[in-house]
Amino acid sequence: MCSSESYLSSLDVQIVDLTVEDIRFPTSLELDGSDAIHPSPDYAACYVVLNTNSGQRGFGITFTLGRGNEIVAHCIDSLRFLVVGCNLKEIFTNMGAWLYKVNNEGQLRWLGPEKGVIGLSVGGIVNALWDLRARLEGKPVWKILVDSTPEQIVSLIDFTYLTDCITEEEAITMLEKYRESVEDREKDIVDNGIATYTTAVGWLGYDDNKIRRLSKQFLSEGFTDFKMKVGSNLQDDIRRLKTIRECIGWENNLMVDANQKWSCGQAIDWMKKLTEFKPLWIEEPTSPDDVIAHKQISEALHPYGIGVATGEACQNRVMFKQFLASGGMQFCQIDSARMSGVNEVLAVLLMAAKYDIPVCPHAGGVGLCEMVQHLQAFYLIRLSSSQKNRWTEWVDHLHWPFTNPAVVKSARYIVPNAPGYSTELKEECKRDYAYPNGKVWKELFNSGKYVDPSLKQKMFPLPHKI
Amino acid sequence: MCSSESYLSSLDVQIVDLTVEDIRFPTSLELDGSDAIHPSPDYAACYVVLNTNSGQRGFGITFTLGRGNEIVAHCIDSLRFLVVGCNLKEIFTNMGAWLYKVNNEGQLRWLGPEKGVIGLSVGGIVNALWDLRARLEGKPVWKILVDSTPEQIVSLIDFTYLTDCITEEEAITMLEKYRESVEDREKDIVDNGIATYTTAVGWLGYDDNKIRRLSKQFLSEGFTDFKMKVGSNLQDDIRRLKTIRECIGWENNLMVDANQKWSCGQAIDWMKKLTEFKPLWIEEPTSPDDVIAHKQISEALHPYGIGVATGEACQNRVMFKQFLASGGMQFCQIDSARMSGVNEVLAVLLMAAKYDIPVCPHAGGVGLCEMVQHLQAFYLIRLSSSQKNRWTEWVDHLHWPFTNPAVVKSARYIVPNAPGYSTELKEECKRDYAYPNGKVWKELFNSGKYVDPSLKQKMFPLPHKI
Repeated sequence: MCSSESYLSSLDVQIVDLTVEDIRFPTSLELDGSDAIHPSPDYAACYVVLNTNSGQRGFGITFTLGRGNEIVAHCIDSLRFLVVGCNLKEIFTNMGAWLYKVNNEGQLRWLGPEKGVIGLSVGGIVNALWDLRARLEGKPVWKILVDSTPEQIVSLIDFTYLTDCITEEEAITMLEKYRESVEDREKDIVDNGIATYTTAVGWLGYDDNKIRRLSKQFLSEGFTDFKMKVGSNLQDDIRRLKTIRECIGWENNLMVDANQKWSCGQAIDWMKKLTEFKPLWIEEPTSPDDVIAHKQISEALHPYGIGVATGEACQNRVMFKQFLASGGMQFCQIDSARMSGVNEVLAVLLMAAKYDIPVCPHAGGVGLCEMVQHLQAFYLIRLSSSQKNRWTEWVDHLHWPFTNPAVVKSARYIVPNAPGYSTELKEECKRDYAYPNGKVWKELFNSGKYVDPSLKQKMFPLPHKI
Repeated sequence: MCSSESYLSSLDVQIVDLTVEDIRFPTSLELDGSDAIHPSPDYAACYVVLNTNSGQRGFGITFTLGRGNEIVAHCIDSLRFLVVGCNLKEIFTNMGAWLYKVNNEGQLRWLGPEKGVIGLSVGGIVNALWDLRARLEGKPVWKILVDSTPEQIVSLIDFTYLTDCITEEEAITMLEKYRESVEDREKDIVDNGIATYTTAVGWLGYDDNKIRRLSKQFLSEGFTDFKMKVGSNLQDDIRRLKTIRECIGWENNLMVDANQKWSCGQAIDWMKKLTEFKPLWIEEPTSPDDVIAHKQISEALHPYGIGVATGEACQNRVMFKQFLASGGMQFCQIDSARMSGVNEVLAVLLMAAKYDIPVCPHAGGVGLCEMVQHLQAFYLIRLSSSQKNRWTEWVDHLHWPFTNPAVVKSARYIVPNAPGYSTELKEECKRDYAYPNGKVWKELFNSGKYVDPSLKQKMFPLPHKI
């Protein structure tokens, strides 16, 4: 470990430009990603590029479901003035304080605070700052985090509103705890990868034959943990769960995901009718804002061995704190793009470790698998008592757009070793999938295969460079 | 009361256009509105205008603090396709279901759900729909609500995620409860107005002399209830509270407002040092997302007769439900522009009535006083057991921009009788305060009196008609 003077010395560059592009993939045409509440998403990303006076660039991703991606792009543009002109070393010297400043800008704060569009936007920018830093240091993000001292980690976090759960001193103690075994754990993760489960067998739009075919395929690839979407029709759910259990047997794990479809009481009633299929968890049973309902559902399903998983729509560390502390969450599903990027996830990882709640990152959207592998490697090496019940979601689509895509072999992520945060898009991806003027989109519009009702009604200019 | 067939017959018009304008007032130059976390806001509104094939127009407001207003304007533009082309009667026939559809649009939902920028945007649109309806019916919004049957009120509300607290049947029973006394209550409210308190004496940027002068002025106007900003410096707070108590005496009510400045523990410690000034409530002691912390603060301050007030930054009905049900809120401060407008406020009013928690609406921003007087009139006439401890905030600035401004006399709102929601702006206001090209703004930029660091760094076009 180095002194704070020298450890950031390679970051002494100035950010001279920030650009953002609206990139979308027409996934709604195939129903990939369909669930009870999002019937036809077009997986999309706001793609943030930071340019520096050293020539080095950083690439950041925030994820959306298509329509509305332009709103996030506009928001990122409106946050430009907080980043362009800054020195990267100064940002990282006390990044928790810097994030407080960004998230509490006196006028913009009203739009959140720290939630929704503005949360997604800050996330995209912060992710780009990490990619830039990691490229300058010549390491992948996970390795930078693993090599940081407890004090350096703590300086990255804004502890505002968290101190009734965790203080800086407590966080340092927790990060010290596994220090002796860090090298062994790192070797294990580098040699053997990170455990995954797959969601790709059971999107709600898939028919039974497709479920069967995909289950067998993933079994043969070594997967032992599977997730299925539920929540639109009880009889369909029972039939689909029967189908998947027939394929994967009872020795493998099966999780179900309702994507916020139910009320508290409905969630309990519905899940009691699915207990025979022995799901390990019910994911997002109800509103992602409802801490008290999650606690009640957790208590009602505990006797059946079913835990509650949530987090992909959890807006910030304050909500995670309440879910974790109240017993409303038995599996913590951090999202790499919804909160203030890497830094706010670190706060959540620390709180999850404090309550010994397994972290199972949400992924599958554009760039999410690429990012969470870094976060989970850090978590497993520095903060986790065990690897048991700690899977990172894996969806095997939309990795080709990346220059360094996430790789899963035998159902385990291979930990990346390229410098950065694995979030750089290929040039041809931007050419083809920029919305709405990329080559693929133009062809879809011209052929009549795709209609965007929102686009036709826009009164204001789309995000584009003036 | 009329049948559902005829009672909406005047609403059979089609919405043929929706426009939105970015209107801002340079309030930061005077420190009006300054508090512990928003040191220099520029009070702003996105101004939504609906045009119909009947020629009738509707005007809606959503409020922000200046920077970022353009993001909300872009978001409203992106929601246009959900409104333009719709028939107003069809929207209002089952508006709870219509709102569910809008708030759960399969791709846009990811940006919330139901929070932040997208919440503010839906709020502005829904407020315009109500103004349009009220103009077509020739009544103020509060009167339409007061004249509605319980079933008609319930049809306006999206009960998703609420049924563990309140069902449609329960809401109908509650609305029946005071039916016999409605005429008396309405006469009382029309004759005597709605109780207010004033925030204008104690903005954080005001010096002691200004506090003294304003306290005396408001006392002489008949005010008996006052609010002061606290939370930046304990010694300053003590001095300022001493000053205001010297002016207003001990028979009048004094409330304090920390605007989310503290952690849970800090809030309790700080407030214990202010007990000698006998504040009735502490408003927004900590994160507006932290239900559990509000409950702890409520319990700690209960022995001192200090309640917790919150709500102006509460993102939606699901959060309000938890605050109300858990004992984390002793005064419920609905906001008329942050959630899905009138309709979602109705859901909160019903839940507050269920738990008998007094509603004290947040106001003071552009158009907020104008709107909440309607909501509070409905609440006091149809849902409240008493008028005690039910004040509506009053800030006496930025009313001149409205064609029918809110009027307070002898510390009571005079209930409006003009058709609509009191949200129409004067033409000269739009001409002078449209941002950044209105006359007043151009002069400020040219004279160097105002600099917007965000504007200079924008890469994308500002919201303007293509």
